[in-house]
Amino acid sequence: MRVELLCTGDELVTGLITDTNSTYLEARLFDLGVKVERVVLVGDVRPDITQTLLEAAARADVVVVSGGLGPTADDFTLECAAAAAGVPLEEDARVLEWLRERYAARGVPINPSALRMARIPRGSEPVRNPAGSAPLVVLTLGRCRLFFLPGVPREYRALLDNEVLPRIRAELESRPGRLFRAFRLLRTVGIPESELDLAVAPLAPSHPRVVFGFRTHAPENHLKLMAEAPTQAEADQALAAVEAECRRVLGRHVFAADGEEYAPALLSALGRAGATLATAESCTGGLIAQRLTAVPGSSTVFIGGAVVYSEKMKTAWVGVPTEVLERHTAVSTPTAVAMAEGVRAACGATYGLAVTGYAGPGGGTPEDPVGTVYCALAGPGFATRCERMSFSGDRERVRLFAASHTLEMLRQHLLTAAQS
Amino acid sequence: MRVELLCTGDELVTGLITDTNSTYLEARLFDLGVKVERVVLVGDVRPDITQTLLEAAARADVVVVSGGLGPTADDFTLECAAAAAGVPLEEDARVLEWLRERYAARGVPINPSALRMARIPRGSEPVRNPAGSAPLVVLTLGRCRLFFLPGVPREYRALLDNEVLPRIRAELESRPGRLFRAFRLLRTVGIPESELDLAVAPLAPSHPRVVFGFRTHAPENHLKLMAEAPTQAEADQALAAVEAECRRVLGRHVFAADGEEYAPALLSALGRAGATLATAESCTGGLIAQRLTAVPGSSTVFIGGAVVYSEKMKTAWVGVPTEVLERHTAVSTPTAVAMAEGVRAACGATYGLAVTGYAGPGGGTPEDPVGTVYCALAGPGFATRCERMSFSGDRERVRLFAASHTLEMLRQHLLTAAQS
Repeated sequence: MRVELLCTGDELVTGLITDTNSTYLEARLFDLGVKVERVVLVGDVRPDITQTLLEAAARADVVVVSGGLGPTADDFTLECAAAAAGVPLEEDARVLEWLRERYAARGVPINPSALRMARIPRGSEPVRNPAGSAPLVVLTLGRCRLFFLPGVPREYRALLDNEVLPRIRAELESRPGRLFRAFRLLRTVGIPESELDLAVAPLAPSHPRVVFGFRTHAPENHLKLMAEAPTQAEADQALAAVEAECRRVLGRHVFAADGEEYAPALLSALGRAGATLATAESCTGGLIAQRLTAVPGSSTVFIGGAVVYSEKMKTAWVGVPTEVLERHTAVSTPTAVAMAEGVRAACGATYGLAVTGYAGPGGGTPEDPVGTVYCALAGPGFATRCERMSFSGDRERVRLFAASHTLEMLRQHLLTAAQS
Repeated sequence: MRVELLCTGDELVTGLITDTNSTYLEARLFDLGVKVERVVLVGDVRPDITQTLLEAAARADVVVVSGGLGPTADDFTLECAAAAAGVPLEEDARVLEWLRERYAARGVPINPSALRMARIPRGSEPVRNPAGSAPLVVLTLGRCRLFFLPGVPREYRALLDNEVLPRIRAELESRPGRLFRAFRLLRTVGIPESELDLAVAPLAPSHPRVVFGFRTHAPENHLKLMAEAPTQAEADQALAAVEAECRRVLGRHVFAADGEEYAPALLSALGRAGATLATAESCTGGLIAQRLTAVPGSSTVFIGGAVVYSEKMKTAWVGVPTEVLERHTAVSTPTAVAMAEGVRAACGATYGLAVTGYAGPGGGTPEDPVGTVYCALAGPGFATRCERMSFSGDRERVRLFAASHTLEMLRQHLLTAAQS
């Protein structure tokens, strides 16, 4: 199956936005055994869009087009599609109804420019957008199927996952001589990509049906296993064998598989242990609390988080003694320990996590330069642990790695506790 | 000048790497008044590369090609360029010398595969690469100039900045009738994209030299203005005129211009007012604190943030009376007001912001369904304000809009205070 992508929008050819939609779709299609043949980005220029649509449709079986479906004057991708197909744009009663419902649900009157989104090429199929106003539009041009999606990443991904990819998959499965595939994504943290590669490389020769892939999603590194075989059962079997070996080699670095993310996995582990958590953050400024509370249902486990940016609040909210701050400074092992113990006590939580450090670009001392972070874990039946870490990179990276390492201290502790 | 970009490499069409090189070049070219007409990404497939080279060279004055210049077997872009030009590849004595010098300087013997990098199309011009081994190669095909660069971002940018862009600029400056451009990005919040469009659309007819562009970056909407004129002074003047009118129409929705982002702009406004801030968050779980503390230097303004997920911590950290919680529940105007006043008092801050609500998917009541959020602002010399908002969408979207609206209450207050 020949697949091409076409992305429209001045923002994509003038350096305002990097096209990450295509990266997402390419990876999903690769999982289905399809390598995208060409990606084309064009600005909001009618003849260019019409021309690139015609060229792509002449070469490909499927073209996924994004951008230019919204209500504003520079949204005219469907106009170009109609021109390419030699049909008029027509107001579609179904889309009109969806738009009316959507605006009614939000309690705002529909405005005239929004109604433009109901005008689609004659003969095309609209599909309701669960995440926005502009519908997915499916148009057939010769032997090519064209899918038109909004460029907003949230809407683009929702429509891809729920509508476009299932249709492409069904089409692939109906083809003769196809190979079956099975996948596993092993998500790791605390091991650099090059070490991950070295650790699993010796396994490759004994698994000829499996392709190993690596993906960095800082601070995590993901190992992607893809098994390919003439039957689904053989592919599943080959995958299970290699997965077991990889898990043995990577051990506790693997925190989850496939779609499960870090924070939900950690909250589940806490829930299984019947434990609760509180956090005290200085340099990460709420990043840890925000990551945890982004997970639905986190309120059953997460009691509270103190963002104690000032020394005063370190004392007021989590009881760090002023002598500790005076003698050791706010960025030190004693302060991190006092913060973890203090927030645990204040919230009455099973565990207390704390982090304090210099995220930069300002601050730091000769002994503790920018990038130095103290992470602490307090809990029942053990002396509070504190680890001094040193992270390179800018403020954003230091905060990201500091938050990740602090959470990881708790996850590793829970693993040990569950085994004993 | 018509410019197109061609990027080669399997990693670009299989979701492994997002093409950020093009974003960089597009922005640099746009500053020179050149809007890239098309960007094409193709995998490591010889006929596809040759074909896309020929197509681009037939349309454009300049084509910037990246990737496939290295020493490995999948580096064959220059081979395709030679095929497209109908000339052979030949070993170039200058490039050979540069490679030998480079390897000698690093004290390593040159290996045979590295010598492949000295083979360039007959008639092309090699330019030494200051940041790597593979040279920049310049080839003329018909009336089109093609620049071939390595895909490694560091080398790509170095060669662009030092060689390619100066040549393009010189070429542009030598052309008669060139147009000059001026830009402004107005960043707005609190106005939907369709309303933004409707608000500024009436201005367009009286500004024929200006192109209006829109970009959604939820919860923000950005308006991009580009003025084009025969002299830079006229372009600047046209831009200033339209910007003033847009600012008048959009009023307080505009929070910043060009590269300035929301949180830094708000922190600057607080700094100018000599004010400090504390936050109490329930449903946003640290999102507000995290956004503010992501900004370097925020510690001079931001005192502390309480993530009070449990009722107990609402009382312990920010002093919400238990009677208020019992009588009005945790999601109510009195609770939001008490949180804002309480965190302001606890931190001794000029302003206290608070947010409590149902982010979903669980929770909510018939009166206050999922998506209902109470946002409050406490400060000196006015009665604490609370706004009840209703946001649609998933947990992530509700949290995002709740955080944004809460911060926006403070920004609007500061605007009023600064004017009075």
